[in-house]
Amino acid sequence: MSDSCKLSGACLIAQSGGPTPVINASLYGMIKQANEYPEVTAVYGAMHGVTGILRGELLDMRQITPKDMELLPSTPSSALGSCRYKIPEPEYDDTDFKRILEIFKKHNIRYFFYNGGNDSMDTCNKISRFMRNSGYECRVIGVPKTIDNDIYGTDHCPGYGSAAKYVATTMMELYRDTIVYDYPQLLIVEIMGRNAGWLTGASALASYYGKGPDLIYLPEVPFDVEDFIRTVERRIKLGHSVIAAVSEGVRDKDGVFISEYGATDSPIRDTFGNIQLGGASSTLKQIVGRRLKVKQRAVEFSTMQRCCATRASLTDRNEAEMVGREAVKTALSGKSDCLIGLKRLPGETYHIETELIPLREAANFEKKVPLEWIGADGRSVTKDFIDYVAPLIAGEAPVAYENSLPVFADLSYLKCVE
Amino acid sequence: MSDSCKLSGACLIAQSGGPTPVINASLYGMIKQANEYPEVTAVYGAMHGVTGILRGELLDMRQITPKDMELLPSTPSSALGSCRYKIPEPEYDDTDFKRILEIFKKHNIRYFFYNGGNDSMDTCNKISRFMRNSGYECRVIGVPKTIDNDIYGTDHCPGYGSAAKYVATTMMELYRDTIVYDYPQLLIVEIMGRNAGWLTGASALASYYGKGPDLIYLPEVPFDVEDFIRTVERRIKLGHSVIAAVSEGVRDKDGVFISEYGATDSPIRDTFGNIQLGGASSTLKQIVGRRLKVKQRAVEFSTMQRCCATRASLTDRNEAEMVGREAVKTALSGKSDCLIGLKRLPGETYHIETELIPLREAANFEKKVPLEWIGADGRSVTKDFIDYVAPLIAGEAPVAYENSLPVFADLSYLKCVE
Repeated sequence: MSDSCKLSGACLIAQSGGPTPVINASLYGMIKQANEYPEVTAVYGAMHGVTGILRGELLDMRQITPKDMELLPSTPSSALGSCRYKIPEPEYDDTDFKRILEIFKKHNIRYFFYNGGNDSMDTCNKISRFMRNSGYECRVIGVPKTIDNDIYGTDHCPGYGSAAKYVATTMMELYRDTIVYDYPQLLIVEIMGRNAGWLTGASALASYYGKGPDLIYLPEVPFDVEDFIRTVERRIKLGHSVIAAVSEGVRDKDGVFISEYGATDSPIRDTFGNIQLGGASSTLKQIVGRRLKVKQRAVEFSTMQRCCATRASLTDRNEAEMVGREAVKTALSGKSDCLIGLKRLPGETYHIETELIPLREAANFEKKVPLEWIGADGRSVTKDFIDYVAPLIAGEAPVAYENSLPVFADLSYLKCVE
Repeated sequence: MSDSCKLSGACLIAQSGGPTPVINASLYGMIKQANEYPEVTAVYGAMHGVTGILRGELLDMRQITPKDMELLPSTPSSALGSCRYKIPEPEYDDTDFKRILEIFKKHNIRYFFYNGGNDSMDTCNKISRFMRNSGYECRVIGVPKTIDNDIYGTDHCPGYGSAAKYVATTMMELYRDTIVYDYPQLLIVEIMGRNAGWLTGASALASYYGKGPDLIYLPEVPFDVEDFIRTVERRIKLGHSVIAAVSEGVRDKDGVFISEYGATDSPIRDTFGNIQLGGASSTLKQIVGRRLKVKQRAVEFSTMQRCCATRASLTDRNEAEMVGREAVKTALSGKSDCLIGLKRLPGETYHIETELIPLREAANFEKKVPLEWIGADGRSVTKDFIDYVAPLIAGEAPVAYENSLPVFADLSYLKCVE
């Protein structure tokens, strides 16, 4: 890598993995920041993540209209499109990497920013390694985003705060809906988070600051179906409605997903080998229905929790932009092979600053909820968890409305560069 | 009924049926308005609708704190509790009615306001008839509320506009989430509305003013599974993702609910004989999965669409309060046996005024979407539908936040009057 900071060339930005409500705030930050450097000759956006690079589908980000530019931060879901393509190890098959190098050379791309989750950090790391080994100077920075909050090394991930705010807010509303009748009901709410219970745990904010779930089940601890039924039965018999927040990834002590208990369809795996989950709540509802006489309902927050831009956290949106800007500053200052982490400073009030985390450390490690933040009963989270998540949902991010509906940026007019 | 307007006595307010995001704005309007009349000696709220009256569980609404009072309009789901109790015909069994009369006499209740949907207007009508026949002077007014928008005689119902806004807004967000990958997907979104497609039709606002569903299926016209599969297949083959908005109540030409097609559990009926639906989307997903190779997802808006106070329509909330106030004014002016309807005035701009609709006309009639507002293809709505619904979602109703989460009124400190 060159010691010189002044590396002249184009920036390439790509988005990958599952969308978040604030992912385009990072995109906005990157474009805005890149435009401040004279040595940045062009700012490109790859369509559909790394697959767009392989196809040479690059958009000129400087053609975005000022109106769309200002709408980007409040526009949910990857404005450039996303992908779930698993790039092979370059040591075994370097076809993709050679193609990427070809594209980078063609467009003189010297700065590459990949905005994604764990899988994307892995891709980012491989590309960085290949470029270095090929002697092509290109600074590669990972820009974290995931509602799952499971990227290693950073206090939290942009995207998580907004999804957490959606979960807590909607839980407060659902609580109201669940208690209106004069008989007890069971509501089972399923929340995303395959292996990490960060988002499910955020439902505790509703109970802490108002009224929310009674039972919170994270995937970090084994789920005991019999204990669940006994707990629900006990409360229902006392005349209390029960609201259970359940991670999509809850599994029993043998590691079997609860969603697989009564599943009629066989589990589907994506190209990363991750099982496509969903259905823990409806499976539990069926099990309870066979055992207890109680009116019940299963609700899935499904993809709503990752595209809820109209309920985004202002803190989260600001941090998403900050991380995007910092990525560009970092690359332009001569650094590479790292992701932009968020570091919480000690003290009573919430203060955050960015820090650099080597890509090789972060790639493919999943950060889970510390076991000491999960209640001893296995169905709650501790005050430490609340203190962790509360500042991340702070503030209501503004939304642009037209015709009393949100307006989002639409980049479909951008043409691929030759 | 007395010709005199000056009937001295207590007001009783009850809420019934499924909650809405603005039902407590009507409650707020009723309490505020009732407090303006010296002849109103007390303002009571029945817990859990008519069942609370039967149990004599009346709360003193004048004990509500000023803070909770101001939070009421933005608090979702019946703050007094609700019920789905089907009162018998007084001609066959007048036990309940005698008990209600006893309670009314005990507390000198001379004004009764029942805030509910079609079933509640029926209850209201029966109580009114019984009081009249018993020679007990009590003015009875129905206050409409339902997200289903299916009450006869009124242009629309308070509650519908906010649920419609939730549906359209969330559809816009989900559209973004669905198109991020470079392969086509099918998203099936299930929306409430057993027999009337008002709420499902509102999803068209997203497509009209931005991007939203491609296919919209209302329960008013038969659903053809084969046609659905062909339509989806055609679009997917062209590389387009498909978003289908489907009413929970879609049924085939023989009247069989689509949700019953692949159901493993037998349908459950509530005490009004209504089938408890749900699962049209997941049933369709299963059917499509057996026939087409496409990545797909089923999403249910479930109870979120009826408790979404943090995304309520300002117009809807204001009208809910207006209808509540008008109910009290109407009763105090000497009228009875009617519900407060909303009448849209002719002209370019949206103007609404209230009108009185005799209870016996409204009770148990369901207002459906006019067939001429449904596209000839059976999978869309017309511009007339858009023009009808657009003004109802206008404006964003304010929400009180504490700790960056909504604060709702909590009336649990109110004690039942002796």
